[in-house]
Amino acid sequence: MGIPSISIMLHELIKLLYHAHCTDVTVLRIGTSGGIGLKPGTVVVTKQSVDSVFQPRFEQIILGKPVVRSTELDAELAEELFQCGKDLAEFETVIGNTMCTLDFYEGQARLDGAFCSYSEEDKQSYLSEAYAAGVRNIEMESSVFAAMCKLSNLQAAVVCVTLLDRLKGDQLTSSHDILNNYQQRPQVLVGHYIKKKLNAYKKS
Amino acid sequence: MGIPSISIMLHELIKLLYHAHCTDVTVLRIGTSGGIGLKPGTVVVTKQSVDSVFQPRFEQIILGKPVVRSTELDAELAEELFQCGKDLAEFETVIGNTMCTLDFYEGQARLDGAFCSYSEEDKQSYLSEAYAAGVRNIEMESSVFAAMCKLSNLQAAVVCVTLLDRLKGDQLTSSHDILNNYQQRPQVLVGHYIKKKLNAYKKS
Repeated sequence: MGIPSISIMLHELIKLLYHAHCTDVTVLRIGTSGGIGLKPGTVVVTKQSVDSVFQPRFEQIILGKPVVRSTELDAELAEELFQCGKDLAEFETVIGNTMCTLDFYEGQARLDGAFCSYSEEDKQSYLSEAYAAGVRNIEMESSVFAAMCKLSNLQAAVVCVTLLDRLKGDQLTSSHDILNNYQQRPQVLVGHYIKKKLNAYKKS
Repeated sequence: MGIPSISIMLHELIKLLYHAHCTDVTVLRIGTSGGIGLKPGTVVVTKQSVDSVFQPRFEQIILGKPVVRSTELDAELAEELFQCGKDLAEFETVIGNTMCTLDFYEGQARLDGAFCSYSEEDKQSYLSEAYAAGVRNIEMESSVFAAMCKLSNLQAAVVCVTLLDRLKGDQLTSSHDILNNYQQRPQVLVGHYIKKKLNAYKKS
């Protein structure tokens, strides 16, 4: 879980795609996230993956020096995926910014970690700032995913379901069955997108 | 794998230790790493966990602002573990600094990732600088581990075996059996330490 793990996987995947001479590849990250101001179960198609100060960039250290990479995603692909959510009409789907953090507790303004040096008010104020900057969900992989895909000229999108509304709490309160249903939503949406593309390909 | 994953585990562990009223706890991280200037299979007991510019600190973002935490480890415990390695005399054990990175490829000056914007010479120069700063191995968890343990007043140590010498290459070349043997060394060393402590406790 997290940026270091997905980064290793992507290095391996990109090398495999290169050696397999794949072209016109689309890579989709699906997963779960914490929502901001959304009903739990809402699926967020990421417009921009932003850092902790809501900027669309990923800073990485190379040979001891910071290198900043863009986390721009394919706007047309995001729009197509959003449209798939609307076609399905099985759950709410929105387009919004996704904040990517290195830490699940303090990095996401949670109050229930082993340490917490801020108040509920500080948390609410930070998450409200995020909301004002267009952030609709928080997860831990999208920035390096977007940066590495962009650097490799891979079309990329991020589709994550929100398991809770972070403005209302830090812990999951839905039942196992409901959470299980939520978790399948990004797969259902992306499955629909893939079928749509394959059908269009067959017809052409 | 990596800082985000171990950080989540440590938040949970520290909360459990707190609620279980545990006192005088010692936490040991064991694992594998890439060595610098050491024979593969050498076990490194970490003196200081350092960042990519070789400083003993861990920077974390909280509510969008950087917070720097010390990664100081227990010097006496490190010395005791080093002594255990000497007692065992089954493999080489050294005390040295451990560099902790967020990235396995570019973050560790590897040349074999999907991207590489530097030369073999740049890599060698960076790793030599690290060696001069006392770094003997590189891994991806020790900094947040040291910082969180220090913040919780837990005695902590990091014991990792080196699977290769990064000055000589980026990929593992040892056989599966040899790597398997290497991987057991930190467990053997720490097992010896635990037995020694239990025996001392029984006698007292």
